[in-house]
Parts: sequence; structure tokens; C-alpha cells
Amino acid sequence: PSSKLPDITTTIFTVMSGLATEHRAINLSQGFPDFNCPEELVELVTKYMRAGFNQYAPMPGVLQLREKISLKTQLLYGYLPDPEREVTVTSGATEALFAAIAAIVKPGDEVVVLEPCYDSYIPAIRLAGGIPVHVPLVVPDFHIDWNLVKKRICSRTRAIIINTPHNPTGAVLTHHDMETLANIIDGTDILVISDEVYEHMVFDGDLHSSVLRHPSLRERSIAISSFGKTYHTTGWKIGYTIAPPALTVELRKMHQFLTFSTVTPMQLALADYLDQEDHYLQLPAFYQAKRDLFCQLLEPSRFQVFPSSGTYFQLARYEAISKEHDLEFAKRLTREIGVAAIPVSVFYHDKTDNKFLRFCFAKSEETLRKAAERLVAL
Amino acid sequence: PSSKLPDITTTIFTVMSGLATEHRAINLSQGFPDFNCPEELVELVTKYMRAGFNQYAPMPGVLQLREKISLKTQLLYGYLPDPEREVTVTSGATEALFAAIAAIVKPGDEVVVLEPCYDSYIPAIRLAGGIPVHVPLVVPDFHIDWNLVKKRICSRTRAIIINTPHNPTGAVLTHHDMETLANIIDGTDILVISDEVYEHMVFDGDLHSSVLRHPSLRERSIAISSFGKTYHTTGWKIGYTIAPPALTVELRKMHQFLTFSTVTPMQLALADYLDQEDHYLQLPAFYQAKRDLFCQLLEPSRFQVFPSSGTYFQLARYEAISKEHDLEFAKRLTREIGVAAIPVSVFYHDKTDNKFLRFCFAKSEETLRKAAERLVAL
Ligand SMILES: CSCCC(=O)C(=O)O
Ligand SMILES: CSCCC(=O)C(=O)O
Repeated sequence: PSSKLPDITTTIFTVMSGLATEHRAINLSQGFPDFNCPEELVELVTKYMRAGFNQYAPMPGVLQLREKISLKTQLLYGYLPDPEREVTVTSGATEALFAAIAAIVKPGDEVVVLEPCYDSYIPAIRLAGGIPVHVPLVVPDFHIDWNLVKKRICSRTRAIIINTPHNPTGAVLTHHDMETLANIIDGTDILVISDEVYEHMVFDGDLHSSVLRHPSLRERSIAISSFGKTYHTTGWKIGYTIAPPALTVELRKMHQFLTFSTVTPMQLALADYLDQEDHYLQLPAFYQAKRDLFCQLLEPSRFQVFPSSGTYFQLARYEAISKEHDLEFAKRLTREIGVAAIPVSVFYHDKTDNKFLRFCFAKSEETLRKAAERLVAL
Repeated sequence: PSSKLPDITTTIFTVMSGLATEHRAINLSQGFPDFNCPEELVELVTKYMRAGFNQYAPMPGVLQLREKISLKTQLLYGYLPDPEREVTVTSGATEALFAAIAAIVKPGDEVVVLEPCYDSYIPAIRLAGGIPVHVPLVVPDFHIDWNLVKKRICSRTRAIIINTPHNPTGAVLTHHDMETLANIIDGTDILVISDEVYEHMVFDGDLHSSVLRHPSLRERSIAISSFGKTYHTTGWKIGYTIAPPALTVELRKMHQFLTFSTVTPMQLALADYLDQEDHYLQLPAFYQAKRDLFCQLLEPSRFQVFPSSGTYFQLARYEAISKEHDLEFAKRLTREIGVAAIPVSVFYHDKTDNKFLRFCFAKSEETLRKAAERLVAL
């Protein structure tokens, strides 16, 4: 019998990280830091494991952690979600995305997706029987053409997925974007799934445009974030959602059968740490410095670089260097130059190739300097 | 818009654990131990976190762990799965079950499910568009009536889900059961999903009847197990699957979009620990002693008890005590007697009430004695 996902092959993250290892290339492909999480966080996890907190967490997440998430949300976005009825801890943002889509998309429902987009959105929509409606972001700065969005919305539209700061492009949505979105879906039943996992990496003094800031949006949105990006713990797989009670009820039904609950000692440690530390308030400056360094180092190169506005990714256009398809170019770069990056075409349903590579700059200064040296020589 | 899972209400595990807390009852409902995991395992996790292993694990799982799973499988069941192509680490057995079902069940496919069954099977089948075909186990010993299974199989049957040792009943399948299953599906395309998370809790000298022992079964099976039950770490959420390469390819496509990967430092710690320790070989005796104690303590009671053959659950029939529906009886027992258990009717699609409660005996001797004292007074 045939595959449920016939088009899916090995994920690009596995392909490029594998190729990087094979050729001992500097790995700026898959998004994760090459530095460790705060030591205190490790000690807190250890404390809880030793004290015996190794059994199932409550299905919606450890309550202390949900409370801390609520308080942080109020501090940052001026809205205090109810930890009991609006906050749910998931096994990573990937699970949160899958659960959100599975909860609201029924067979035949259309879901507007802005391309390029993270590679799990489309398969999750398809598995729910939904129909992805692709709207391309506008090259080269990857802003949303809201008129185009408007044209693709119809009575079958169940939801729109937005993502700010945006992976893979590093673009961010503005307050004006959010107002426009609110106006477009006003008077419809369209829901919003808002992927905000890079919320603490917005640069140049901008504020993150969370749906949670907008009363008319948040009442029809599932906002998704993650601790992995924020605390340098992508391997702990702890994400969360904030959504109105009725949506949260449906989302938890999915979470219950997808993973039931999420790793307990890490949840408890994060709850304590969120109380003591404002680590996340330092992240914009921390990552902006890395972005600035990386962009500056690439200045003498033949790559065309517009500094990214958020995330820990930097796009670079290589038109002046090669006419190859970006997947081919990325592979050759890894093999011959020793730097691995992600070709952006993989994030388009039709593999649109705009000659962009995505570099992850969540790396030590030394790593970034070494990589840039090789890229400049190209 | 209506719910994707309209029949799903708060899980019984949340309900009964919540009621137990509220009434300060002894909680023998949700299945988890009240003792801690091996100390060395905690220290290994700490070691890996301190050393910086806090980023994404490879999508199919840490290779060292998959290798150890293979070796253990060979030791126990005489079959060495290929760690690269046949073993996948998941975020708990719940994710493994969901991924297995999502990978193979298409809209309109029928899936044979033996009732009572774990509460995630049916929703996962429904979400994939499949049709659960319920076959009741035979009361009071909950064996499989294979003639009934045979009658319910047809050209639309895509899979059968088996579970041994069996939650909630504690029944185990025999070698003869497995032979019968193999004969029944011989010559069909029917696949087997085999939930074996209690594989290390088979009592009275019996061997666990894994599908992996049977060449004709394992080539069409997804076997599912978990470290949570075995290492007293239900809150770490690490499960795994063993399946032939073609099935593993499809299963990983789901895993990739469900959670992508599973908590890294715990995977590394388990890989090391599996190497050094045969902890799991001591489990049958460890849990059999607890079962024996609990059954013996209940002897003077008015509950009817047939010692369970596997798992860390013991059924007890209360017909002689009350005519109440088991959900009502379970709630009253928690409130008035101070012992929480799971009513078995919740594991039937039509809430069949055979007047059984399920007690978890993965508890300290003191807890079991206190609980039994209260139950005997009834
Ligand atoms: C889940 S692995 C991919 C990490 C990531 O989010 C990215 O690199 O885009
Ligand atoms: C996932 S919570 C339920 C634990 C369990 O497997 C059970 O009690 O049956």
C-alpha cells in the first residue's frame, strides 16, 4: 500500500547536518546553538530528578510552569492568560503545531500558508485532510502581500498560519501587519495559528508582534512558543500554546493522544528559572550582536545580505556566485567550502528557487569567523 | 464549529488523580510508581546536560540508544533489528502509537481493536479517518476469542492492534495466541501494531510473547515499547518502535512532524545505563512480589481477585460489594474509602461495565498495605 505522505523524503535538517559531519564542514544549517544552556537550569533539572520528580506531568503541563508562562505573557504582551484554561505545555513547538492543526482542520478545510514556511505545516494540514493554500511572501524582503491573502480567502478557509519572527527568512511582522490581518478576518470564522517560537529574537529595537497583544486576534488564535530557542535547550523539546478556553479544550484532546504529557523535571526546572531570571530579556541584544558580526564578516563576500530582523537565521543570496539550484549549491558549499547551510527552496511546496541560503548564526564568535572566512573566499 | 473528537472528555487519569488529591486518597489509579528511578540514571542525565548535550537529537533517535535497543532485543527475543533502519525513538509510547496508526491507517480502513483497550487507540484511528472494529476480550480472564477476530476481519481490514501484557486487565498473550494470529493474517495485507510497553512485567516464569520472536509476524508488525515503565521514569516520555524498514520509513515521516525528536540527555543516559545494567531482568521478580503482596492483602476482602499475569495493574471485581456502575463506584471509593482506582468501563467504546476496578501496584509496600487495609474494611 502507498504512503500517507508520498512526497516526504529525508528532512533537509538531517540531510545537511549529515553532510556537514561527513565533510567536517562548519554546520550553520539546522537551527541550534553551539553553546550550552545556563548552568543553573541544568542544576535545577538535576535537583528535581534527584527529588523523584520523574513521573508523568499533568496532561496540560506542570501548573507552576503554566503560571510562569502566564506572568511572562502579561509582562511582555499585556495579556494574562488563564494558566488552567488557556496555557498548555507540549513536547516541543512541533507537537504544538501539529496539535493545533489537527484540532481545528477538518477534511476539505482550506488553510492559508505563507511561503516559504517551516516544513511541518503542510504535512500536518494534509494529514488532517485539509487543503493548503499557498501564498508566496514577496522577494527579496519577504513581506506579506495582504491583498493576495485576501484574494485566497473564501468560505472554505478555516485558518491562516502566520510565523513571526519568520523561519527561514528572518522577516518580522509589524503592528500594521497584525491590524491588517485582524481586519481581513473580521466577520469571518477564520482562526489564526501563530508560530512565535523566535519571539525573543527581534532586533533593532523593534517589539515582537505577538497575536496576544491584539484582543481581536487573540480570541481566535493559537499562539505557539517554545523554550528550546530561548534557553538554548532545543533538545529538551518543551513548547507551549496559549489559546482561548474553547480552542484549548480541542487542542488538549489532540495533545492527550499525541504525547499525553511532556518531560517533568525540565518543566519544573524551567518554572523555577523563569522566576529568578530574565535571561530572555537579554536575548535580543545577544543575538543581534551575532547577526551584526556575521553580516559584517560577509560584507567583503559576493553574497547579497539584508540583515535579518529576527530569528537566529540570516539569509544570503548567491546569484552573483552561481546559477546552480540552491539545493545543489548548498551541497557543493558543504563539500567544497566546508560550510553547511539550508537551501530556502525546500520551504516552498513547488521548490521555488530564489537563490537564497539560510545560515544559522546561533554560534560562537569563533565558529562564525571561521565560516565567514570560507564564504568570503568564494 | 464542532469538535474533531466530540466524545472525548477529561481523561480518566486526570479525573481520578485529581479526585485522589482532593480527597487525600491513596492513588492507585494512574499507572506510575511512587518510587524513584535508579540514582545512576539521574547522574548520567546530569553528566550529559553539563557536557552540553542539550540540543536536538537526531530525528530517529540517538544512535547509541538505538544500538542498545537492538542488542537488548536480540538478547531477549532472538532478533537483532537494524538500529539505522528499524529502530525509532519517540516521545513516549503514546507518540509511537499515534505515529504507527497515522502512518498506516487511511480514510475508510478498518482496524481491529480488542476491548477493553488503552484510551488513545480509538481516537488515533478516528483521526486518521479509520474505522475501529471492536472485539471484546472474554470475561473474566480477558483472553482473545480468535474466532471472533476472524469473523471481524475483511478486505477493508488494514491492521490489528494487540497489547501484551495487557493494560488494563493484566492478561498476557501466549505463544499459541501469536501462532493463531499469524495464521489468521497469513495471506492478507493486515499489519500488526503491538503495544508491548509492559514487556518486562510478565509473571510466574512466563516469557513475554513479543511479535519480534515470530518471523512471520515481525515482518508486518510495528512493535512499541517504552523506557518509562521499565526504568520508573514515566515522566521522561521516551518510547520506541521496532519495525521493518519500509514501515519504519512511513512511521518516521509521522514522527518527524509530530515531535521531530526526543529529549537528548535522557536518551544518552539510557544508552549508557542499558550497557551497564540489567535492571530490566530484575523487574519480573520485583513486580511479581508486589502483585503477590497486593493480592494476598486483598484476600480477606469482598473483592474477587484473579492475580494478574503481567503489567503493574491488578483487576478486582466488586460485584459482591456494590451494584453501582464502575465509574460511580470508583469515585465513591476515592471519596469515602480513600483509595483511587480506574474503572475498567472507560476502556470500552460503549462503556461496558463488568464491575471491575484496576489498581496500580507499582507502589511501596507501605502504600499497598494502607490501601489494602481500607479495601478490606469495605
Ligand atoms: C526541528 S530541527 C530544525 C530546527 C529548526 O527549526 C530549523 O532549523 O529551522
Ligand atoms: C499516560 S497516563 C496513563 C498511564 C497509563 O498508562 C495508565 O494508567 O494506564
